[in-house]
Amino acid sequence: MTRGLLVESRHRGAVAVCDADGNQYLALGDVETPAFPRSAVKAMQAIPLVESGAADAFDLDDTELAISCASHSGDKAHLATVRGLLAKARLKEAQLACGVHWPMSERASEELIRAGKNPSAIHNNCSGKHAGMLATAVYRGVDPTGYERPEHVVQEDIRRVLSEICGVPLDRHDMGIDGCSVPTFALPLAALAAGFARLGSGKGLTGARKEAAGRLVRACIASPALVAGEGRFDTVVMRGLGPNVFSKGGAEGVHCASLPALGLGIAVKIDDGTKRGAEHVLARLLSELVPGADRVLQSRIDGELRNWLGLKVGRVRPSPVLASAAKSLSSAKG
Amino acid sequence: MTRGLLVESRHRGAVAVCDADGNQYLALGDVETPAFPRSAVKAMQAIPLVESGAADAFDLDDTELAISCASHSGDKAHLATVRGLLAKARLKEAQLACGVHWPMSERASEELIRAGKNPSAIHNNCSGKHAGMLATAVYRGVDPTGYERPEHVVQEDIRRVLSEICGVPLDRHDMGIDGCSVPTFALPLAALAAGFARLGSGKGLTGARKEAAGRLVRACIASPALVAGEGRFDTVVMRGLGPNVFSKGGAEGVHCASLPALGLGIAVKIDDGTKRGAEHVLARLLSELVPGADRVLQSRIDGELRNWLGLKVGRVRPSPVLASAAKSLSSAKG
Repeated sequence: MTRGLLVESRHRGAVAVCDADGNQYLALGDVETPAFPRSAVKAMQAIPLVESGAADAFDLDDTELAISCASHSGDKAHLATVRGLLAKARLKEAQLACGVHWPMSERASEELIRAGKNPSAIHNNCSGKHAGMLATAVYRGVDPTGYERPEHVVQEDIRRVLSEICGVPLDRHDMGIDGCSVPTFALPLAALAAGFARLGSGKGLTGARKEAAGRLVRACIASPALVAGEGRFDTVVMRGLGPNVFSKGGAEGVHCASLPALGLGIAVKIDDGTKRGAEHVLARLLSELVPGADRVLQSRIDGELRNWLGLKVGRVRPSPVLASAAKSLSSAKG
Repeated sequence: MTRGLLVESRHRGAVAVCDADGNQYLALGDVETPAFPRSAVKAMQAIPLVESGAADAFDLDDTELAISCASHSGDKAHLATVRGLLAKARLKEAQLACGVHWPMSERASEELIRAGKNPSAIHNNCSGKHAGMLATAVYRGVDPTGYERPEHVVQEDIRRVLSEICGVPLDRHDMGIDGCSVPTFALPLAALAAGFARLGSGKGLTGARKEAAGRLVRACIASPALVAGEGRFDTVVMRGLGPNVFSKGGAEGVHCASLPALGLGIAVKIDDGTKRGAEHVLARLLSELVPGADRVLQSRIDGELRNWLGLKVGRVRPSPVLASAAKSLSSAKG
């Protein structure tokens, strides 16, 4: 990130681009040390909801599948979709264990403030994921209380699914507790990228797992505004580039994507945990791999920084190593 | 920053601890490449306001001097103090060129929203600094229009003062435009730390410059809530540790401090620009150097991270190199 003629700040990190067989098309930085994927793997965490038959039993539609994979902004449409999912499984908002934060959407926060209200668990960006987890527990006939705990069958299933899709064993040593209180399992970026290749293309998956992955990815791409929110990276990408890209960011500088047509997966982790770095890296890679991405992501690729008066003061730009590595990726398109 | 048993994110950076003669008590990382200090040097930028005689001519009190050094939260007391300063110099809010952002204070933002209002330039965290710059222009009898531009005499004076206090030449190559549209000049961290040693102790300064520095630092320490705001690092530090510490953060991971009694200055820059890293480093260093800092900054030194439900999920902690370097600093106390 430059200001005037100088570099002001630097983001370091790692990125892997892999196919479903685990072949590495790009590996910059440390792609072997496990990194917490956080919310980037919500679509994988939602697989048991579909694979188990719960989604069909509760007659969930594609918007409800999309919200179960979302880090949503807390706008009206998000809340209505989560509530719809909860109602179909006869669940209550009070059962959500994700905790409370103000909606990411400024508009939604302002509306709460004007109404003299405080946010509740439904406004948490993870409420759709939690609703899906609760519905899975209900369908399986287990007590949903404590569904967020590592030892609950819902979380045990998710651990197994993540491990199988990404092709790495996952145990308690790799586990952290996420912002929304469910387990998050650290994975090498290379394994995560291969997992996203499988998730998006279905290659290496079979039967109900393959069907569930395809259905969730298609549901997200069909409702890009539900998966994130207006103006946010994943919504912009999937609205402009779907069905060629499924993308999902996570906290602490993680961002992943599936490119179904190319059979590739991408996993980015910025060491310092900033979104500014992660989104710029992913935008650069997509611009080399996906037709139209340079146009859809133009402002993010330009990286122009403006101050409070609107003056141009600097730029976010790739390191020379990243820029040339991204260029070399275009061969992966062929 | 850890989560569970693993390191999730890392902040790299540099830190210098120097005395007024430029002796380095600590130099970790690159302390010689110029870094933009951003808002960390607001007290230095305010020196011409006092040194020129403008502050006395307009009968500014210590709260108005403190707000001219502030990155304030936009609470009522901040706005009232900026307005008082403007009124004494017969200036209008419309002359502020800092641009507009929502108040940093959530409470202040909520009050604006509830009142159906939008923020204006007075809410910008830099409005006190800008009011001081405008007052300086008026006192000097120059047209205040364009006071924010590099070629205006007010900014030329500030460049000269920064250069003299920190002991480094500063030219256009070192200049960037800050978030609030005034110039910011990049300085090596070692020079910045030595400058803060001089600013806080007066050593190496003479006459009106020395008097102005002492008056501004004392004014900030006397009104810690004006310099930042409730709950913020600089307010907590100066309220709990003044007169032994003057501290001031800037954007993009810069944080500086003067320790007047020890004759030391500290300058921290986190490469990636995050406050999380900068505040943790400064808290660690202060805890070794200043009696009582371990108590006042306990929660920041512990670095405990809790999630939306209040569960402990990880910690911010120093690297082994930083931890042992900080320990070694205690010899500088003697």
